[in-house]
Amino acid sequence: MKETEIILGIDPGSQVTGWGVIAYRDRKWQAVDYGCIRPPKGDLLSQRYLTIFEGVQALIDEFSPHAVSVEDQFVAQNPNSALKLGMARGSVMLAAAKKGIPLFTYPPKRAKKAIVGVGQASKEQVQKMMMSLLSLSKLPTPSDAADALLLALCHAHSYSNPLQRGKNV
Amino acid sequence: MKETEIILGIDPGSQVTGWGVIAYRDRKWQAVDYGCIRPPKGDLLSQRYLTIFEGVQALIDEFSPHAVSVEDQFVAQNPNSALKLGMARGSVMLAAAKKGIPLFTYPPKRAKKAIVGVGQASKEQVQKMMMSLLSLSKLPTPSDAADALLLALCHAHSYSNPLQRGKNV
Repeated sequence: MKETEIILGIDPGSQVTGWGVIAYRDRKWQAVDYGCIRPPKGDLLSQRYLTIFEGVQALIDEFSPHAVSVEDQFVAQNPNSALKLGMARGSVMLAAAKKGIPLFTYPPKRAKKAIVGVGQASKEQVQKMMMSLLSLSKLPTPSDAADALLLALCHAHSYSNPLQRGKNV
Repeated sequence: MKETEIILGIDPGSQVTGWGVIAYRDRKWQAVDYGCIRPPKGDLLSQRYLTIFEGVQALIDEFSPHAVSVEDQFVAQNPNSALKLGMARGSVMLAAAKKGIPLFTYPPKRAKKAIVGVGQASKEQVQKMMMSLLSLSKLPTPSDAADALLLALCHAHSYSNPLQRGKNV
């Protein structure tokens, strides 16, 4: 593990895109910063995706991550929601590709398993474990930012093992 | 109708993205050029979306369209296909937004109605009418390029009427 390893986790959505940055320092993973990108509600959809695209590019410029980690969403909702989610996720993928940063995706269960050790863990268990691992005194808000940190941590715990590493897409 | 009106139609897909450019010249709409963007199959998904994004930006630079017209796809397939399609369509939307070109979407039935006059027209009827309207001696190939020209023509026939104009997204 390099002392300087930095991972950017992203939880994409057309209304709220959460992000979280973690870094390996003093022999442990630490939360560096987190937050969310909220495109103005009155904006056209295409403008909102541009805000996400440019926001993620700005995060990459600011934190110089070695990898981006995104949820491999399988949404059991209607195709229309999946289409919108795909467009938000596409904006994140494009931003990473444009900056030449490798992007990995993890199914939700894999993320839980990487943190708690079992794929069926409750959301509360996962959050508690994440706070403990990153030495956070409170749960990051909004929940999209917490989910993004979780994805970053999932990649941190998985990428050294080819069997557990997410898909490089 | 301005003498210089130019429309770029796009039929997005992660494997083949068709495009077609039409212009209003000599008091009629004419096909200027068409083709498709085919990201190399071996490329990572994120790299393929980047190829689409940059390809559409290059088309906008080359043809200076006044509007981009895209299908308002409602795909009755599984959410996973919708997600992939969303990512391809998101790449097109981002390219238009980045270049500041307004983007309009049309449901497939509306496109048929704008060309043939009825929403239930067969694919062959629509293609025949499009070839006639654009004075094309043969059907453009691949079919993705023909579909893109159709979308451009649909916007050409619809945008002066607020009731028929597509959604500006």
